[in-house]
Amino acid sequence: MPDSDVAALDGEVSGATVDDVRIVFTPSGKRGDFPEGTTVLEAARALGVDLDSVCGGRGICGRCQCVQSVGEFPKFGLKSRQENLTEFNDVETRYKTKRGMKDDRRLGCQSRLKGDAVIDIPAESQVHKQVVRKRAEVRDIEIDPAVRLFYIEVAEPDMHHPSGDLERVVSALGDQWGITGLERADLPVLQGLQKALRDGEWKVTVAVRWDNKIVHIWPGFHDRSFGAAVDIGSTTMSVHLTNLQTGEVVSSVGAMNPQIRFGEDLMSRVSYVMMNPGGDAELTTTVRETLGYLLTQASLEAEIDVNDILELVLVGNPIMHHLMLGVDPTELGWAPFALTTNQPVRVRARELGLEGKTNPGARAYFLPCVAGHVGADAAAVVLSEGPQYRDEMTLVVDVGTNAEIVYGNKERLLACSSPTGPALEGAQISSGQRAAPGAIERVRIDRETLEPRFRVIGSDVWSDDEAFAESVRKSGVSGICGSGIIEVMAELFLAGVITADGIIDGGLAARSDRIVADGRTFAYILHRGEPEIRVTQADVRAIQLAKAALYAGAQLLVDKIGKAPERVVLAGAFGSHIDTKYAMVLGLIPDCPLDKVASVGNAAGTGARIALLNVKARDEVRETIARIEKIETAVEPRFQEHFVDAMAIPNKTAPFPNLQKEVALPEPKFAEAAASQSGAEGGRRRRRRR
Amino acid sequence: MPDSDVAALDGEVSGATVDDVRIVFTPSGKRGDFPEGTTVLEAARALGVDLDSVCGGRGICGRCQCVQSVGEFPKFGLKSRQENLTEFNDVETRYKTKRGMKDDRRLGCQSRLKGDAVIDIPAESQVHKQVVRKRAEVRDIEIDPAVRLFYIEVAEPDMHHPSGDLERVVSALGDQWGITGLERADLPVLQGLQKALRDGEWKVTVAVRWDNKIVHIWPGFHDRSFGAAVDIGSTTMSVHLTNLQTGEVVSSVGAMNPQIRFGEDLMSRVSYVMMNPGGDAELTTTVRETLGYLLTQASLEAEIDVNDILELVLVGNPIMHHLMLGVDPTELGWAPFALTTNQPVRVRARELGLEGKTNPGARAYFLPCVAGHVGADAAAVVLSEGPQYRDEMTLVVDVGTNAEIVYGNKERLLACSSPTGPALEGAQISSGQRAAPGAIERVRIDRETLEPRFRVIGSDVWSDDEAFAESVRKSGVSGICGSGIIEVMAELFLAGVITADGIIDGGLAARSDRIVADGRTFAYILHRGEPEIRVTQADVRAIQLAKAALYAGAQLLVDKIGKAPERVVLAGAFGSHIDTKYAMVLGLIPDCPLDKVASVGNAAGTGARIALLNVKARDEVRETIARIEKIETAVEPRFQEHFVDAMAIPNKTAPFPNLQKEVALPEPKFAEAAASQSGAEGGRRRRRRR
Repeated sequence: MPDSDVAALDGEVSGATVDDVRIVFTPSGKRGDFPEGTTVLEAARALGVDLDSVCGGRGICGRCQCVQSVGEFPKFGLKSRQENLTEFNDVETRYKTKRGMKDDRRLGCQSRLKGDAVIDIPAESQVHKQVVRKRAEVRDIEIDPAVRLFYIEVAEPDMHHPSGDLERVVSALGDQWGITGLERADLPVLQGLQKALRDGEWKVTVAVRWDNKIVHIWPGFHDRSFGAAVDIGSTTMSVHLTNLQTGEVVSSVGAMNPQIRFGEDLMSRVSYVMMNPGGDAELTTTVRETLGYLLTQASLEAEIDVNDILELVLVGNPIMHHLMLGVDPTELGWAPFALTTNQPVRVRARELGLEGKTNPGARAYFLPCVAGHVGADAAAVVLSEGPQYRDEMTLVVDVGTNAEIVYGNKERLLACSSPTGPALEGAQISSGQRAAPGAIERVRIDRETLEPRFRVIGSDVWSDDEAFAESVRKSGVSGICGSGIIEVMAELFLAGVITADGIIDGGLAARSDRIVADGRTFAYILHRGEPEIRVTQADVRAIQLAKAALYAGAQLLVDKIGKAPERVVLAGAFGSHIDTKYAMVLGLIPDCPLDKVASVGNAAGTGARIALLNVKARDEVRETIARIEKIETAVEPRFQEHFVDAMAIPNKTAPFPNLQKEVALPEPKFAEAAASQSGAEGGRRRRRRR
Repeated sequence: MPDSDVAALDGEVSGATVDDVRIVFTPSGKRGDFPEGTTVLEAARALGVDLDSVCGGRGICGRCQCVQSVGEFPKFGLKSRQENLTEFNDVETRYKTKRGMKDDRRLGCQSRLKGDAVIDIPAESQVHKQVVRKRAEVRDIEIDPAVRLFYIEVAEPDMHHPSGDLERVVSALGDQWGITGLERADLPVLQGLQKALRDGEWKVTVAVRWDNKIVHIWPGFHDRSFGAAVDIGSTTMSVHLTNLQTGEVVSSVGAMNPQIRFGEDLMSRVSYVMMNPGGDAELTTTVRETLGYLLTQASLEAEIDVNDILELVLVGNPIMHHLMLGVDPTELGWAPFALTTNQPVRVRARELGLEGKTNPGARAYFLPCVAGHVGADAAAVVLSEGPQYRDEMTLVVDVGTNAEIVYGNKERLLACSSPTGPALEGAQISSGQRAAPGAIERVRIDRETLEPRFRVIGSDVWSDDEAFAESVRKSGVSGICGSGIIEVMAELFLAGVITADGIIDGGLAARSDRIVADGRTFAYILHRGEPEIRVTQADVRAIQLAKAALYAGAQLLVDKIGKAPERVVLAGAFGSHIDTKYAMVLGLIPDCPLDKVASVGNAAGTGARIALLNVKARDEVRETIARIEKIETAVEPRFQEHFVDAMAIPNKTAPFPNLQKEVALPEPKFAEAAASQSGAEGGRRRRRRR
C-alpha cells in the first residue's frame, strides 16, 4: 500500500491529532492514527481491516483474536512494544478460561492502544476467511455466506413510547452493526421473538440474510451456523454439513436414492410418473424424506443441533432438481426437454418438507440447471473446477447415472449430458456394489497366467499377500465398486481376455480355469469365495454402453470446439478413487496426456459447498451458465456415430497416442461377427434414451 | 390540461407527421397525433390515458370499452365522425354476443383510427377506477390493488436454444406488458407452470404482485381476482369478499369468534394462554379455522372459486392480531404491553393455515397495530374515516369488546383503547343477542304509563300495531341486539325508570306492572312472551360499565388535546343501526352537536377493504399511525376519575349542552346510598382490566 493512500486514510479516519498513536495491521498493511484507548477492533473497523466479530465487541465470541508483533518495524517507522496495549483484562481471562485461547493471543475488542502497535490478524480471525483447497489448480473459497449471526443488546419496551419488539431489534442491528434496510422477518421469527428477547434478558443473536431478512433469533449469545451442500444424484444422494463461519465440513453422509425402486435410470422414473397419476408426488416425497434423513444423520454425526442449519444449496440433474422442487418432470422426458426454469430457485427449506430437519428460517438455494439434460450438478462442477478461467481446453466429466459433460476454456464453453446409466457406479453389474469396505477397488491380472490379484476398500493388502485373509476378516470380499469395475475391465482387456469389441474370449478357457462358460457366453471369476465374484458378458456390455455414451458425449463437444482436450477432470461419486489410466484404457474419455487427467471425486458436491459459503459465487455461476452453449445429444447425428465407435475398447476409430506412450495396448482383436452387432445393439438402446 | 403540455406530449409521442390523425380522450383531455390504423388502446397507452386491459389487446377481456363522441368539437379543433373509426369487427361482435356490451360501446383494442376522433373512457374502463362511497364526508377509493392479472402469449420451448418455461413467461410479460424486474415466482407457480402453459396452448394469465412476484398462472384467459377484507373481532369475525378489479363487495359473511369459549373478553383469553401451556396454539387454530370457514362460505355465497382469492387484508385488536399470526399474546396481558411488531406484517395465506381456502399464492397483509392496546382495527378505522385529513376535531370510536378510540385532526392525532367488554354487542346481557331477525332494535317507553313499544329486525311494524304479530310470525321476538340495548336503557332513563346512578327504581312498581322484583333488585319487563324479555339490574350495570369505559377513554383523549369534539364517528359491528341520540343520552360519548355524530357501522372492515383495493393506502396508514400519540389508559390516573363520573347517566360531572338542546333530560335522580357504591364497584372491576 503506497504511503499516499495511508495518508489519505489517516486523514479520513482519525483527523490525526498530536496525541494519537499509530496502529498498523498485518498482513493487510492498513494503518491509521487513533486516540489512546481505542480498541484494536474499533481501529480495525475504522480502517476496513477484515477482523471478525459476532458479539460486537463484548468479549464473548472470541472471533476478533489478534497477535501483537513486538519489536522495531522500520518500514512502518515505529516500535511496537508489549506495553503499548492495555493489559490482559478480566474479560479476556474469562474467555481464555472458558473457551481456550493461545498464549500470544489478545481479544481485539478488549485490548486498547496505549502506544504505537503492529497487530497481526491471523487467518481465522478474518471475516472473509479463505478455505484453502487441496489441489493447486483450483481456486480457494472465500467465506462470505448468505447468512450471518449478529449478537445485539435490545432496548426494553417502554409503555410510554410504545414500539414493537421487532422494531427495537431492528434499531439495535442498525446502531450496533450498521445494518440498515432491514424490514421483514419470517413469521416463525415473529412467533419466537418475544420469548427469545425475554429469555435472553434483552440480549439475543440474530441470523440475518444478505437480502436483509431476519431468519432466526436465539436468546443470548449464539455462534453456531451451518449449511448443507446437497448433491441429489439419481443413484446416490449426499449431504456435506459445513460450518458457515470456518468453511469446515463437519460431516458428510450419503445414501442410495430410494427413487431407485421406481426405476434405476432417470427415464424409467419419468416413465413411472407418466404412467402413474400422482407418481411425481410419490417420487418427490421419497427424495425429500431421504434428504430429511440425511440432514438428521449428518447433524447427529457432527453433534450439532439441526436448528443451527440455516442454509442449503442443492444440486442435481434436471429431473432430480424438478422432483425435489415438487415439479412434475414429465416435460424433461421428451423433446424439446423444456425446463420449468433455467434460473436459480430460492425457497424456504420448509417448503421442501424439511420442517424439523433444519432451522425454521432455513433457505434452500437450487443452483440453476444448464439445459433440459444438463443439470445444476453441471453448474456446480463448473463452479468447482472453473474451466471458464483457464486457457487450456478442459474437459470436465461428471459421471453419474447421467453424465454431465462440460468442455472448453475461458473463451468458450459447451455442455451436454449423456445417459450412461448407473453401471459405472456399480449398479447393473452382477457383483457391483457401492464403494464401501469389502468392495474390490483395485485389480491386476497377470498377462500370462490370467490370475488376478486385487485389493478391497478397508485393506491395504493385495489379495495374493498372505496377510490378506486376516485383513478382510471383518469386511469380507463383498463385490466390486465403480473404480474396481473400471480396473478389472481394463486389465481383462490388456490381458487379452476381453476383445476390442467387448467379448469375453471363451477360447482362453483352455488356458485358465478363471474363464468359465456362463449360459451362452463366458465369464471371468475374479474371486472364488462366498459370494463368488465374477465378471459376466452382461457386465462387460453394461460398461461398454456406459463408457460409449460418456465418450460420445465428450467427443461431440470436442468436435464442436475443434480442439483436443489439454486437460481432463473426471468427477463423480465414483471418480475419486478411479485410476485415470484405466479409464483411458477403456476409452471412457478422449486421449490426453495422462498427467493432465485428474480424478477429483464429488466436484458437484464441492461446487454446492462453494455456493453455500460464498454468495457471490452464485451470481458468478449464473453468469457463466448463461453463456454456456447447450448441446442436445439426442438430436446430434454424430453422437450416434461416436457412440458406435466407442463401443469398441478403447475405440474403433479414435487414436490414443498419449495413452500409448504409457501403456502397451494389445493388438486390436475382434470376436468374429460380433463387432457390427454390438454397435447396432448400442444404437437401439440409445434410442430408448435412459 | 394547458395546450403547451399537449404539444409536448404530441412531440414526444407521435413525432407528428402530415398524415397523422388526431385523437382526444375525454374526460382526461389528453390528445395526440397518430398514424391512421392506430388502435384506440395503442393511442391511449402512448398518451398515458388510463384505459384498462387484461388481455393485452386481444379482444377477450372487454376492459378497454370506450365510446366515440360524434359531432363538432371546436375546443379541440376537430370533427369526430362515426366513420373516423374502423367498423365494428368480428372480434367485437364475438365479444358482444358472448359477454354482452352496450350498443354505443367499442373495444379500444379493435377500433382503429381513420380520422380525427374524440373518445370517451367510461369510469369502469379505467385501470384506476374510483369506488364511490356513500357518505359525502369520506374519500372515494381508487382501485390500485397489490395484484393484477396479465394475459400473455408465451413462446414455445426450442431445444436448440434452451430456456426455462418461466423465463419465457417473464419475457412475454416484458414484451407484451412492459413489466420488468420480474425474477421470482412462488414455488406453487413453478409446480403448476408447465401444465398451465401446455393446457393453455402457450396462452396464460399471470397474477403479478406489485413487488414483482408471480403468484399464480392460469391456462388461457382469466379475469377474476378477489380479495378478502377480514375483521377479527374478539366477539365476531367478518369477511368481505371484494372484486379486486371493480371494488365491488361480492359477499359479506360473519361468525361468532369461537375463542369465546376460552373467555368472553380479551384478558380472559390471555389468562387462558398464561395458565395453559399450548393454549396460544389452541386459540390460534380456532381463529384460523373460523377464518377458513368464513372464506369458504363467502366464496360459496358469491359463487366464486376460492382459487380466485389472491389477497387478504386483516385487521383486529392486538391480541387477535397476534393470535391470528400464531404469536403468543401473553406480553399484551401485562405492562408494558409490548407488541411483537408495530409494523405491517406480510405473510403467505398458507402460513396462516389457509391452504385450500384461497389461491396457493395468496398473501395476507396485516395492518399495523398502533400500540399494545390499540389494534390494527384502529388503524383501519383511521384509514376509513380519515380524521388526519380534517380540520374539525374528530372523535372516532370503534366499539367492540375493546373500544378503539382515535381523536384529533390533521394537526395531531391521539389513540387509546378501553376495555368495554362485550355488553354493547349484546353479550353479557340477560336477553342480549346478535343483530339478527327477531332481535329488538328500536324501543320507545311512554313517559306516563311506562308501557313500551318496540320494533324487531326483519319487521317495519311497531309492537303496538295490530299487524305486528303477523309481521314477526317467522322470526318471533327473540332478544335484544346492541342498538336495542342502548335504546331501552336510554328510554328507561328518560322515563325515570332508571335513576342517574343506574338503579331500576322499585318505587315505580306501584305505577306499572312492568316493574317487577327480581331477587334483591328490580327488573323491567320489555316483552311478555316466550321468551320473556326483561331488562335486569345486572344488565343496566353491564351497560354502565361498558359505556363508562368508552366515555372515559374518549374523554381522556379530549382532555389531552384540550378541545371538545366537533364531530363524532361511532363505528363497530353494533354501530351501524345505533341511534346516535340515545348513545349520547346514555353518555357513551362526550357532548357534540347531534348532527355531527354519525354511526357508520363496520369502519374497520371498510378500512381493511381500502387497504385491499389500494396499496398506496397501506403506506399512508403506516405513516399516519407512526405519528399517532399512543395513550395507555391503564396508567392514566384521570381515566379512573372519568370512569367513575361516567358510571352516572349521562355523566356525573360533564355537561351535555348540545344534547339538551334536542332532548329533555330528566332531573338527576340518584337512588339513595347507591351512588358512591356503584362507583367504587366500577373502580374495582376496572382494575381487573378485562
